[in-house]
Amino acid sequence: LQEPLSLDAIRAAARRIEGRVVRTPVLARAPRAGLELLGKAESLQPTGAFKLRGAFSLLATLSPDVPGVVAHSSGNHAQAVARAARVLGLRAVVVMPSDAPALKRARTESDGAEVVVVGPDSEERARRAEELARERGLVPVPPFDHPLVAAGQGTAALELVEEVGALDRFYAPISGGGLMAGCAVAVRALSPRTEIVGVEPEDGDDTRRSLSAGERVSVPPPKTLADGLRVRTPGAFTFPILQQHVARVELVSDEELLEAMAWALHELRLVLEPSGAAALAVALREGRGRCGVILSGGNVDPGLLREVAKRGRAPRL
Amino acid sequence: LQEPLSLDAIRAAARRIEGRVVRTPVLARAPRAGLELLGKAESLQPTGAFKLRGAFSLLATLSPDVPGVVAHSSGNHAQAVARAARVLGLRAVVVMPSDAPALKRARTESDGAEVVVVGPDSEERARRAEELARERGLVPVPPFDHPLVAAGQGTAALELVEEVGALDRFYAPISGGGLMAGCAVAVRALSPRTEIVGVEPEDGDDTRRSLSAGERVSVPPPKTLADGLRVRTPGAFTFPILQQHVARVELVSDEELLEAMAWALHELRLVLEPSGAAALAVALREGRGRCGVILSGGNVDPGLLREVAKRGRAPRL
Repeated sequence: LQEPLSLDAIRAAARRIEGRVVRTPVLARAPRAGLELLGKAESLQPTGAFKLRGAFSLLATLSPDVPGVVAHSSGNHAQAVARAARVLGLRAVVVMPSDAPALKRARTESDGAEVVVVGPDSEERARRAEELARERGLVPVPPFDHPLVAAGQGTAALELVEEVGALDRFYAPISGGGLMAGCAVAVRALSPRTEIVGVEPEDGDDTRRSLSAGERVSVPPPKTLADGLRVRTPGAFTFPILQQHVARVELVSDEELLEAMAWALHELRLVLEPSGAAALAVALREGRGRCGVILSGGNVDPGLLREVAKRGRAPRL
Repeated sequence: LQEPLSLDAIRAAARRIEGRVVRTPVLARAPRAGLELLGKAESLQPTGAFKLRGAFSLLATLSPDVPGVVAHSSGNHAQAVARAARVLGLRAVVVMPSDAPALKRARTESDGAEVVVVGPDSEERARRAEELARERGLVPVPPFDHPLVAAGQGTAALELVEEVGALDRFYAPISGGGLMAGCAVAVRALSPRTEIVGVEPEDGDDTRRSLSAGERVSVPPPKTLADGLRVRTPGAFTFPILQQHVARVELVSDEELLEAMAWALHELRLVLEPSGAAALAVALREGRGRCGVILSGGNVDPGLLREVAKRGRAPRL
């Protein structure tokens, strides 16, 4: 039986992206007795999030002769695809919603991508991207539901476990499941006894519900500070992998996200965005033993960062 | 003729500290055409500054039988010595001034160091440390003026140049000169044509004056936001090395430090302290070509961090 995603595929992705993404540091802390926190700082990637790994993983397999790539995204995936395309000399078209933050659009354009603006509805975005792929022969770059993208994201956990060795627990956020699918395969292969814990916002628990139901279910549009975790349904490719490896999914509130962001700012000296602090929030709440944590991104709105900085020194846990 | 500090000594220090400090990432940005900025993020060391390198470099040469070590410091050096001593199983005594920030004292104590409090005068601090060394047989760990300490700090530049190759310019802050002495030797050996640029605060330009005078001169107690750069005289060991390698010293204002901190927060997603942003401030102002920059520390007062976050998105340059 062929595995949908193997350690070999993740190692191959690691070779494709080497020298193109930052080998991010693992920051070790002991916030309390019995907890050794090992944070993989993906916020330090040039575009501010792990998404660059998946984008390079897929784009590096394309011939320079393809007419270009197309992605749809309101955030970190758009910037990742634009950057990877520029570095590899490919043309990129990104479909963004009309309500995307101006800063994210500006950064995507400054990497040379053509931005196509549609309404705020995520289904319209996907439809327009499909049309563009058909009309212009562009290669679609899905944000999570693709083996090469998930393998790329898995290199974050591969590097983590190669650097620090076996873990008691591993925490990563789950949106569409690309990051967790890739990471779970790497962790399971290299540290088989690790408990793999997914993290979702309280409003946006589609994967938790889907795992309970034993099939992919959808939730209404989530209202959460974690704008990177607003996906409504797990991916068709990623979900069976999550079913196989994820022990449980824990939920976080907006207030816990803000506290974890403040903790990261003062204790790790890192800017994290709400989605990027989600796994940290749960590890701080319940972690015991050696806990690997993906600090997945740092693209925070300047106003929100100001609010977090106002919280003063690191909160007591 | 024996060099006071050689590349071999820095490589030996690198072996002593390996696995004990973070191999910090190099963050690459192109803030404007013609400038490739390569920032070595030493703020990500567990104690928040490059000082951990020098502390481990010296302490790792000591026998576990020594009665302990003694250091005097109001800041990052104290935390570095306390942490390195704890990891290596040595006893540490740190002489701190009565006006040291409570947070820095608490962190030093939480690493198990004995803190001896004296008045705010830095000469009294040095005297008391000497007394303790004599009375208790403790090994003094100078903050900069020691070959093993400077060799340890030089590993930051060794890693940088090994990772990115030859540089057009290299920027590092100069306080007592330990960081710059070690880094300058590493850069000169591995990238001989690099222009090596030191950075001091406008008030606190003792090294610039000393280089002009051709001998070590003192300045009055500096008033600068950069509390890590308030040394009044270059070191006796470090100064001749700076004379040999440093092309020039550039000065920064408090306002430029704040702008560089805001830039780092929004563009690199890193918290830097004023001293830690000094080299960055000059590189942003004048840098051309491939510029290596030491981002030396991130131990910022929470109130000041709040002020920096208020500056909103990254300032235009």
